[in-house]
Formats: sequence, structure tokens, C-alpha cells
Amino acid sequence: MDIEQFRKAGYQAIDRICDYYYALEQSKVTVLPDVEPGYLRPLLPASAPESGEDFSQIADDYQKFIVPGYTHWQHPAFLAYFPAGFSFEGVLGDLYASSVSNPGFNWLASPSCTELESIVFDWASQMLGLSPSFLNSSGVGGGCFQNTASEAALVAIIAARSAYVAAYPDAKLEDMRIYTTTQTHSLGLKAGVILGLTVRALQVTREDNFSLRGETLRAALEEDKKMGLHPFILVATIGTTSSGAIDNIAEIKTVVKDHSEIKIHVDAAWAGMALVCPEFREMCYLKEINEIADSFCTNFHKWGLTNFDAAPMWVRDRKYLIDALDITPPFLRTAQGDAGTVIDYRNWHLGLGRRFRSVKLWFVLRGYGVEGFQKHIRKAVDFNKIFVDLVSSSDLLSLCAPPSLSLSVFRVNPKPATPDQSSLPEETLNDLNKLFYGRISSRKDIILTQTVLNGQFCIRLAIGSSRTQEAHIREAFELITQEAKLAYEAWAQPQIGA
Amino acid sequence: MDIEQFRKAGYQAIDRICDYYYALEQSKVTVLPDVEPGYLRPLLPASAPESGEDFSQIADDYQKFIVPGYTHWQHPAFLAYFPAGFSFEGVLGDLYASSVSNPGFNWLASPSCTELESIVFDWASQMLGLSPSFLNSSGVGGGCFQNTASEAALVAIIAARSAYVAAYPDAKLEDMRIYTTTQTHSLGLKAGVILGLTVRALQVTREDNFSLRGETLRAALEEDKKMGLHPFILVATIGTTSSGAIDNIAEIKTVVKDHSEIKIHVDAAWAGMALVCPEFREMCYLKEINEIADSFCTNFHKWGLTNFDAAPMWVRDRKYLIDALDITPPFLRTAQGDAGTVIDYRNWHLGLGRRFRSVKLWFVLRGYGVEGFQKHIRKAVDFNKIFVDLVSSSDLLSLCAPPSLSLSVFRVNPKPATPDQSSLPEETLNDLNKLFYGRISSRKDIILTQTVLNGQFCIRLAIGSSRTQEAHIREAFELITQEAKLAYEAWAQPQIGA
Repeated sequence: MDIEQFRKAGYQAIDRICDYYYALEQSKVTVLPDVEPGYLRPLLPASAPESGEDFSQIADDYQKFIVPGYTHWQHPAFLAYFPAGFSFEGVLGDLYASSVSNPGFNWLASPSCTELESIVFDWASQMLGLSPSFLNSSGVGGGCFQNTASEAALVAIIAARSAYVAAYPDAKLEDMRIYTTTQTHSLGLKAGVILGLTVRALQVTREDNFSLRGETLRAALEEDKKMGLHPFILVATIGTTSSGAIDNIAEIKTVVKDHSEIKIHVDAAWAGMALVCPEFREMCYLKEINEIADSFCTNFHKWGLTNFDAAPMWVRDRKYLIDALDITPPFLRTAQGDAGTVIDYRNWHLGLGRRFRSVKLWFVLRGYGVEGFQKHIRKAVDFNKIFVDLVSSSDLLSLCAPPSLSLSVFRVNPKPATPDQSSLPEETLNDLNKLFYGRISSRKDIILTQTVLNGQFCIRLAIGSSRTQEAHIREAFELITQEAKLAYEAWAQPQIGA
Repeated sequence: MDIEQFRKAGYQAIDRICDYYYALEQSKVTVLPDVEPGYLRPLLPASAPESGEDFSQIADDYQKFIVPGYTHWQHPAFLAYFPAGFSFEGVLGDLYASSVSNPGFNWLASPSCTELESIVFDWASQMLGLSPSFLNSSGVGGGCFQNTASEAALVAIIAARSAYVAAYPDAKLEDMRIYTTTQTHSLGLKAGVILGLTVRALQVTREDNFSLRGETLRAALEEDKKMGLHPFILVATIGTTSSGAIDNIAEIKTVVKDHSEIKIHVDAAWAGMALVCPEFREMCYLKEINEIADSFCTNFHKWGLTNFDAAPMWVRDRKYLIDALDITPPFLRTAQGDAGTVIDYRNWHLGLGRRFRSVKLWFVLRGYGVEGFQKHIRKAVDFNKIFVDLVSSSDLLSLCAPPSLSLSVFRVNPKPATPDQSSLPEETLNDLNKLFYGRISSRKDIILTQTVLNGQFCIRLAIGSSRTQEAHIREAFELITQEAKLAYEAWAQPQIGA
């Protein structure tokens, strides 16, 4: 394809993306595709063509075979998992970045890639209210993209292990412990299996809204240390995936004062974006995060309007990462790197090459401004209040945990017909809700995610897609209610007969 | 930005990318930018704007501040590191993928993402001549994208460690050994520091062209096992970064027959793309790779015409990865995953979310066809022959290792003026070449990479950028010769005076 062919195909792509978004906004497609596993293989040839093909055919096949197989994360009715960030500014940033195909692993590999990343991370850091210690301009701390929050946590754990082993060279890997809670995202366990290290998941309770309390941490530390084990990092969460639980960083701060060898990684992959609004900072323990977190991660590619992937991580001391990850062979040495006048971000992450993601974050931060981000966050929280009010007034549904920002966890839990009747037993409720979720899952016009909260099977509804409006929340509630009724009737039917 | 504003900004972006490529083709810009470390920060505000800005201003600032700070990897004179893959088909693929911003971590998260990845990997696998065992359609082996070759090696090592520990539960992590060679890319050492495992870099010699020989491996295995250590994986390389060395997989095959517990990861990040041409398969040990490799990685984002990142990895047995990396919490369970009818690629890599990269590979494979890839590879190899001939006929330059495909490693090494004079001593040559490389590095119109081959300081010239033509190779040689002369004169001057 030559330059003029690209211009033509590029215009077409832009037009088709416009068409796609008009179709989504007008709900001309359902949020889930109507395809079965294995749908695509019979539609495509078994091998690559011998000769190159005309791009117009390729572009048409994309529309014909690939688009119909998408789960539309940008659909206004997308309420599953967490929202996937999106903005047209982000698409344009990705487009410009892809057009120079630059692996930016050190300063020389593209000065503007490194320098823009360093600058926009300071913008983002200030917007979130992070301490000046985390600014790249501090020359001590700083931030950069990791691939995902999982990899950010992994990098934090590697850095913590490295620092711990340097301080306690006799500690055996087999005796080292990563602390998470039972509600931490699977990234904690996955880091454990990746590194071959044991994860201890500290128990959290429904009474504490699934938040890690200081005393639980203290007891675990004392118990493990007494046994000669070496807990070396706590992955604390601001906004767990299952229920949006927020670990009590204030209490954790008190505990780690007495256990200064343990590092703290704060995973705020989803909820961290709420820090752009001053009113959510206290509930998210921003002050305490700024005091004790060694590293902090939030995903602009979730609630932050930026196209996947965009997973920033900040550290209080860049040496924490570099000491653990710097490997500089001769072919990667540069005059600027040797002189120490530049950041070589390859030493801050797992791989070597890194895509130029800061351009999209720069575009999005400028396109929306701080106010645009605040509006986006507040809108989702407000919509969630509407959903919560609807659930609270329902005879069929109830919340399983307090609503957290723009996330609600609920289940079918029919109110007794008369006050003297008792609620259904937990086991029954779990069966009923599995039936209900099975019904929801078989539909193409709604997508929600299941979870289990200390044995309770429940359903999550997560708001935050750029295109979701109040009407979509009300429609989702109607549909949920309708399916809950049908599930309850289907469940009640054989009970009556039995 | 609304849909119509996006259309306008999108057209403009396409036009500006066209302008950029016209400028590169006409060499209106130098390959390296004329910026100093820290150039960008004074040009941008210290924080994000409060209110959103008009995109036309943002797009103009991109042209004004960011483009001038690029190292132009797509410049025809780019001859450093390894080429960064590029094609307009790839840009379009990235654009379409970014436009749906989909974290595709399991089948349901977007059926077409998973299914297309599974299919194009089979296309690519066949194009490279890999064994049918590596096909996704085999249901046993298969392939998918990793983020980079570093992360592919890391994943392979994690899988191997996991398999080894399952088979030998008494093996202590402290006693386990990753094998590489002294010429393996830093990815080997980096995996070691990431995992906290010891890397043993096996010695390779100039006489063997820096290729790992079977006897070296055998001796190391016997020695380590005698000492109670546990070597569990060998990272073998097809085309090392420093000199394009190819480890002797035929001999390695004989050795591992007697040490079947050791896994083999083949890192062919750069040279693997040469396998699209039948004539390079034997020298790259394709037959033996197909017989013994547990995993294989090559980067389409290097020599493979595909925009960064595109780092495929194949495994002979997918359970190898899944057994090591599968963590499935309730919120990631799906009906299709539970039924085992789909691939959930999140269990094949380090993170959770994954970008939709297969669409660009699909576009590129179709746009070029197998013949287009072959032409691209052969062109670069032919250009390298031209460079090698020029070096061979030079009085000032000599090769430091046999040329490897499209890579040459050379140094300034003046031929004695008369046959009875001897060559310069090695130490002197190193000083002279550092001076020479310093001169090259201070120019903006050429970029080459330094390396050290068993103590010898040398310079790499790597061909393969889509836009490089014969004239660029000849121009580079002229410029190299000119700088070599100046360096030699500058070096000889004080010698004469001394």
C-alpha cells in the first residue's frame, strides 16, 4: 500500500468508525454479539494468501466478519466488568503513535516519547492529587505506563522483593510472603504464581464491607514473623473488582509504622480515577496513600476516558524499580543514558520495547481538561445512585454490599410477602441467583458480571462507559427486574409442585 | 469531541501521516532529531488544563513539539538496533482496534478478538514453516501475542519453572538455573532478576561465530547437576542482537535427548522472520526447532512489517502455559470458558487485559501475502551483501563476525600500509572504534548501534526498514568511511606527535 492508497483507506476507516459510533449511540446493535464459539474459523481461509490482496477487500471483510463478533465495550448498555476507557482523542493518539511505530525503550530511541511520558505523568499525578514525591520532575519518584494493573502490581512486587532481599540476604524465597486480601483482584495470586512466591490472602469480612482492617494486617504480620516467614509487600486495594471495597489505608498506616520493612502497593485500577474529584479523596484515603504508598496504580483505560491500554504506575523512589530491573548490555548503552541526564523507561518495566502511549493520554487530558474528567466521574456516580434507589425500592432485589462509587453489587432476594415470613436461606438464594444470572447471560442486550462475596453469589453492575445515559440505567433495571421475576417464578414453580 | 469532530480530526491525522511519510521518503528530515535531553518540558504547561481544549490546537502542538523529537525508525537511513516493523496496513489495523477499545481477556470479552488471534497465528505459523504441533487448530499447541520478546522469554521461563517444580518438588528456587549464552539478549538476565532466579550464561567463542555448541551445553548440564543444581530451561537464540549468531540447535537437540527435563525456548525475535524464505530455514535450524522447541518467539514488529507491538509466541503444548498462569476468580468465569469450548488467552500471558493486535497482523498478512514478506526479507539480505562487499573492499573497515542475514558487525581496522606491518593491537582498536562511534553518534543523519563481541568493541548495521533502498546503504557506507577516516586521522595525529 502506498501513501495515497493509505490516505484513501484511512479516510474510509475514519468514516466507518464514525458509522460504528452512530450505530452504538442509536442502539442499532446489541451489546453482545450473536456468535457461537468457533464462528470465525469457517469464514476465513486456512492460511495466508500467497500474493498481497487489495485493501478494500480486507477492509470489507473486517466489517463483515470481525465487527459482528465484537462485544461492544463502548455500547451505552455495557455494564459488565469495569468500563473500558474510550475517547476519540484516545483513538487519534493511538493513530499518531502507531504511525511512527517506535519501540521507545530508551531516551535516544525517541526523545519525545520518553519526555512526553514523563510530563503527562506529572499532569496526571497532579490531577489525581498524588503527592509531589511521585512527580517525575522530583527527580526521585516518578511514573510511567505499565501494560496493565496486573503488571504494575507484578513490577511492584518484584521491586519490593529485590529491596527486601538486599536488606535481608538470608531470607529464602520460599519463606517470603506477598500479602493481599481475599478480595484482591486475581493479579495478586497471578503475581504469586509468576514469581513462584506464596501469597497470603488476609481475611476481610462483610461487616467491614470487605475492607482490610489494620488489626487483621497486624495479626498476620506478627504471626508470620514469629514463624520465621518474611512478609515483604502488601497489595492494598482502593475499589476491589468484586464490590469496590476500599482497604483501610489509615489503619494500615498505623500498622506499617511498626513494620517498616513491608512495602505498600496501592492498586486503584478502577476507583483511582475518582481521585480527580476532591469529594472522593477522603473515602479513598488519598492523604494516607500519599504518606505510605511505595507505588500506586490506576488505569486510565478503565474509568479514565483513555483507550486500552493505559495503566499508569507511580513510585515514590525510582531507584526502587531501577535497582530491581536495570540490565544494560552494550547495545543499549547511549551517551545520554551514561550521562544520567535522561530517563530510560525500559528499566522501569518488565519488557524492553514500549509503545508510545503518552501521546493518547496527553490528547485525552487536554481534550477533556480536569473538569471534563470530573464531570465524567460524577456522572457515573450519580447514575449509580439512581440504580441503587431503584434496587432499594424493589421487592425482588437487594444490594450485597454498600454501593461503591459507580459500582453496585446486588442479587435477587425476594422480600417476604408478609412480615412474619423469613427471607430465603442463603443456599437457596445462591441457586436462585445462578438461575437469574444464567438468564441474564443468555441475552445479547445486556451484559453484567457475576461474583461471589464471602460465599454469596451476586451480580455486579458497573457504570462508566462514556456513552451510558440515565435512560440506559433505567432500561437495565427494568430488564433485570423482568429477568429476576422470571427466574423467581421458574424457581418457585417446582418448589410449589414439590 | 463528537463524532463529526472526530471525522474532521481523523481526516487531518491521516493527511498528516501521509505528509510525514512523503517527508521521510524525500529525506527532508534527518533520522535523528536535533533535541537535547529535557527539550520538551519547558515547551509544555506544568499541568493539565482545567477545561478541555480544541483538538485542532492539540493536533498542531503534536506537530510542533512532538514530531521534531522523534527518532525516525521508519526513516530509510535507520540502520540501528533492529528495524521497527511498519506498514500502512498495520497502522489501519491499530486504528480499527483502538476504535473499539477492547481488553479482550477472555472469549466473551470479545469473541472476534480471540478467534481472529487464534486464526492468524495459524496463518503466521504456517508461513514460517513451524510444525503443525504449534497450530491453535491442533487443540494442543498454539500461539498468541506476548507484549515483547522479553516477555515471551519470561513467560516461557515461568512455564518451565512451573513444570519443573511440579516434577521435582524438592528443587529449591535458589538452586534452579536458567541457561542462556553470553550472547543472549538481556532478556535472559532480565528474566532472572524478575524471577529471582540465577542465570548461567554459557560461553560462546569467536571461532564458533558466537553460536552455542552442544558440548558446551552438555558440560554445563553435567557440571551443574553434579553440584545438585537444577538447570531447567535453555533460552536458545536464532540471530543474537549483537551479531546475529545462531545457536546450534542440531547439536542442542542431541544433548537434550539425554536431559529431557530441560525445556527449550527459542528466541528468534529478529531473525525468525527469515523463516518465511525456504532458503534460510536450514541455517536457522527450522527442522530442529520443530523437533525440540517447547516455545518459539519471533517479532513481527521487528523485521515483519507490523507496527510495534506484535510479538508472537508459540508453544507445543498450551497446558504448559495454562498450568503455570491460570487464575480464574468468579468474576472472570464465563459459560464458554467453563465449557472448555474457547481459548481464554488471559491464561497464556502475564497480565489480564490484552489489546486486539491480531487485526493488524491479519491486515498485514493479507496486504503483503507470503510473497510480499519473502520479497521484504530478501531485499534486506541482498542489501546487506552490498554492504558486506563494500566493507570487504575497504582499507579501513573490517567485519567482526560473518554477516548474518541483514545484519553486519564491523569496526575500523586499518589494513597495514605494507604487508610486513602488523595490524593494530586489540586495545588500540577498541579505543579507535570508540572514537569512531563517538563521531557517528554525534551526527543526526545516521544511526548505528555499538556492541561488544567478546571484548571487541564494534558497530552494528542492521537493514530492514521498509523504506531503505540500495542508495541508502551506499550513502551510509560513504558516511561511515568518511567518519572512519577522520577518526583514524584524529587518533593517528597525537600518536605521531607522541
